[in-house]
Amino acid sequence: MTQTQETPTVISPEALLEHWQGHRRLTRKMIEAFPEDKLFTHTIGGMRPFSGFILEFLGMAVPGLRGVVTGKWENAFDLPHHQKKEPPSTKKELLQQWDETTEEMNKLWAQIPPARFAETDKAFGQWDGTIYFFVFYWIDNEIHHRGQGYVYLRSLGIEPPAFWDRS
Amino acid sequence: MTQTQETPTVISPEALLEHWQGHRRLTRKMIEAFPEDKLFTHTIGGMRPFSGFILEFLGMAVPGLRGVVTGKWENAFDLPHHQKKEPPSTKKELLQQWDETTEEMNKLWAQIPPARFAETDKAFGQWDGTIYFFVFYWIDNEIHHRGQGYVYLRSLGIEPPAFWDRS
Repeated sequence: MTQTQETPTVISPEALLEHWQGHRRLTRKMIEAFPEDKLFTHTIGGMRPFSGFILEFLGMAVPGLRGVVTGKWENAFDLPHHQKKEPPSTKKELLQQWDETTEEMNKLWAQIPPARFAETDKAFGQWDGTIYFFVFYWIDNEIHHRGQGYVYLRSLGIEPPAFWDRS
Repeated sequence: MTQTQETPTVISPEALLEHWQGHRRLTRKMIEAFPEDKLFTHTIGGMRPFSGFILEFLGMAVPGLRGVVTGKWENAFDLPHHQKKEPPSTKKELLQQWDETTEEMNKLWAQIPPARFAETDKAFGQWDGTIYFFVFYWIDNEIHHRGQGYVYLRSLGIEPPAFWDRS
C-alpha cells in the first residue's frame, strides 16, 4: 500500500485556501457590480439586501478561522454585524473590510496544523462537527448567498460577473 | 516529519462524496418545494427556471464523473439537456432522474483512484484543470444556482428548506 492510499487526499490545505480566496475574489466583484444604494436596499421576497450577506460572510471568515486555529470560538452573537459598533454602511467601507479580511485569513490559515481539519469541535460554541465541514460550510454559504445576489443584479437589469472567473 | 504532514489532506474522497450527496439531498428538497408549474416556468430577470438549473446539474454529475473515471469526456453539447431526446418535463420525471443519478454517482465515485484528484485533464474536452477543481466546480455550481432557486421560492411566498439541513 502506498503512502497516498493510506492518507488519501482530495485537496491540500494550501489549495483549499486558494479555492476559498478565489470565491472571495468573485464575491468582491459582485460587491463592486451593485449600485451603491441597491447594495444596501434592494431585496426580493423579504430577503436581506446583498450587503447583509456580505456582513454575514465577514462575520464567519476571520472569527471562524480564529476558532479553527485557537479552539476558542467567539459567540456568534458577538460577530461584527451583531456588535453594537456600526457595521460598514458604504461600498467603500465594505470593500475595505473585505480586503482586510483577505489578509487576516491568509495569516490565520498558515497557522492551521494539517491534522486539525479532521478534528471535531463545536463551532461558535454551538455547532458540532469536523473542522473541514465548518470550512466548507463557510465557503458554501458564501456561494449560496452570492448566487442570490446574482438574481438581485439580474432583476435590476445588471449583468453579473462570470461565475467561473475567480481571477 | 510525519506521514500526515507529507500528504496533508483536508477531506477524504469518501467524505467529499458524502458532502456532495448531502448538497444533492438539499437540492432534491428544493425540487419538491416548487409548485409543479413554477418549477418549469417561474423566472426572474430573464434567468432560466429552476428546472433548467436541475437539467444542468444532471448534465454535469454523471457525465463529469464518467470523465473523471475513464479520462474520456463526452462533448458538453451531448449532455442530456442538449440531446434531441426530450428532457424531463414533470417534477416526477426530474426526481426520478435525480435519484438514478445519485446511484450512478456512487458507483462511479468508487472507481476513482485517490491519486486521480490531483491529476490534470481537459474536462468535457474544453476546460483545463485538476480533477479536484472540476469536482468542486460541479458542487459549487449546484450551490450557486440552487441559491438562486431560494430567491425564486421566496418571491413566490414559499419558505425554502433550511440551507444547513443535508439529511
